[in-house]
Amino acid sequence: MATVTVPTVVPSPAEDADELRKAFAGWGTNEDLIISILAHRNAAQRRSIRQAYVDAYGEDLLKDLNKELTSDFERCVLLWTLDPAERDAYLACEATKRFSSNNCILTEIVCTRSSLELFAIRQAYHARYKKSLEEDVAAHTAGDFRKLLVPLVSSFRYEGPEVNTTLAKSEAKILHEKISEKAYNDEEFIRIITTRSKAQLNATLNHYNDEFGQPINKDLKADPNDEYLKLVRATIKCLTVPVKHFEKVLRLAIVKLGTDKSALTRVVVTRAEIDMIQIKEQYHKRNSKPLDHAIAGDTSGDYRKMLLALLGEEDA
Amino acid sequence: MATVTVPTVVPSPAEDADELRKAFAGWGTNEDLIISILAHRNAAQRRSIRQAYVDAYGEDLLKDLNKELTSDFERCVLLWTLDPAERDAYLACEATKRFSSNNCILTEIVCTRSSLELFAIRQAYHARYKKSLEEDVAAHTAGDFRKLLVPLVSSFRYEGPEVNTTLAKSEAKILHEKISEKAYNDEEFIRIITTRSKAQLNATLNHYNDEFGQPINKDLKADPNDEYLKLVRATIKCLTVPVKHFEKVLRLAIVKLGTDKSALTRVVVTRAEIDMIQIKEQYHKRNSKPLDHAIAGDTSGDYRKMLLALLGEEDA
Repeated sequence: MATVTVPTVVPSPAEDADELRKAFAGWGTNEDLIISILAHRNAAQRRSIRQAYVDAYGEDLLKDLNKELTSDFERCVLLWTLDPAERDAYLACEATKRFSSNNCILTEIVCTRSSLELFAIRQAYHARYKKSLEEDVAAHTAGDFRKLLVPLVSSFRYEGPEVNTTLAKSEAKILHEKISEKAYNDEEFIRIITTRSKAQLNATLNHYNDEFGQPINKDLKADPNDEYLKLVRATIKCLTVPVKHFEKVLRLAIVKLGTDKSALTRVVVTRAEIDMIQIKEQYHKRNSKPLDHAIAGDTSGDYRKMLLALLGEEDA
Repeated sequence: MATVTVPTVVPSPAEDADELRKAFAGWGTNEDLIISILAHRNAAQRRSIRQAYVDAYGEDLLKDLNKELTSDFERCVLLWTLDPAERDAYLACEATKRFSSNNCILTEIVCTRSSLELFAIRQAYHARYKKSLEEDVAAHTAGDFRKLLVPLVSSFRYEGPEVNTTLAKSEAKILHEKISEKAYNDEEFIRIITTRSKAQLNATLNHYNDEFGQPINKDLKADPNDEYLKLVRATIKCLTVPVKHFEKVLRLAIVKLGTDKSALTRVVVTRAEIDMIQIKEQYHKRNSKPLDHAIAGDTSGDYRKMLLALLGEEDA
């Protein structure tokens, strides 16, 4: 469930566009006005505002925001204002171009979205970059990382609730065998993780837990510093317990010396309209502290105001 | 361009449905009437007739056709009446379940369709089989075949005309190196073929031809009986010169002792609304004989009438 709050009476997109234009006018920028509008509109409404803005002023709202804002606040507002599929395409592209530790970001983006959402990301990627997502991922990775990431970003998983129990048992056994042999890059191992529906994979992993005594991710910690194993664990977590994955990303981002603002922004912006209520609950449970307090204590200024607004909280 | 002919004045879907119902009534079946309707309606019109049929009689037109018709004629009419994406999903599913020589059928289906058409096939596969296409392909293949086929069926290639010439040159060199080393299953080799846009791949293969003296498919004939190499050659042909691929499938189907009716039906039914005019021209050029004469000489009865109607010819 979403944390974003939308007023009961929403101004027309043209009115919102006018107000934003006013926020940019003259010396300085009215950040509070920008937050009060954009942080309280849903994706469809933001899209309409962008359209109304270009209709009225012949300019791209994103470009004007880019000119007016700076730093973390800028990135947060820009990412938030983008259409979800466009935003994910942008984040995925950014992740393919950085170091291998960003493979986990790619996995997060493609494994926590629905099959149709992932397809919309691939379409947005075509439109924006004149290339395909899998093409870039394949070209920027190699070896085991490529073997796992290319099918993940190309998948169109079945989403029905049907589960084949016999298959779950036999594939749990295959996974266990491969892990026992430390064959984490085995093609059967990768096939099961990258092609089965989330419901089927869940059944397989439950059976794994029952039959072999502990969750698969514990068995995938043979070498906690192995980057490929980290990616496999993140993949499994994103596919089966996304809320726990996001809680962990937020926790590590906040705990980190200096705060990992990039991760903080990404999770808040991409989940505020989806499952942020559950993520907040999970965070509170795991850290004995409300997420908004933790974020308020770790950030400042307009950036803080924006994040808290997206979390459905007033600035403390 | 299509060979299917649609009358200038088309009866309403309800009228067509009524006529079909009459063709099934009483003793025997009026095959000529069925052909005169279904073989002269485009995909959207056939879809409307199916809907009108279920509205009027509460029954599925396909099931009734299945009851009334037999053998090759039945298969041809049923495949033709299906929606293109549904039909391709059906053919792909059939291909995954047979022997490895059917891998070429799978390649044909996924490599000669547009990116959006392939995505529609994947959606139809979900709806029809409660599984994903890549899931079935991955589960029914292994080794090199799987390494090539899974990314092919999962691809969503960029379709713009942009070509990066520097990239074409460097990737032509990679392909040539891998072929020289007989590393046909190399991950870079597979990456290039399975992820690049058709325009980009075409530029790469043109450069290959210019730089290394002969078309890549000649260099991929080291062992003409190697099934994997056959698949690689078929893949490249389907991606770059689909009309030549289809001409060859038809030629081999007709030359074969006993005629490969399955291949004949597949190509006529899937291409009649797309590029059958070009395929006929290519066939005539390559075999010094019109395709319809060759088909008329090799088939008989209602099956022949149906095929010729789809080819835009009267029965000879």
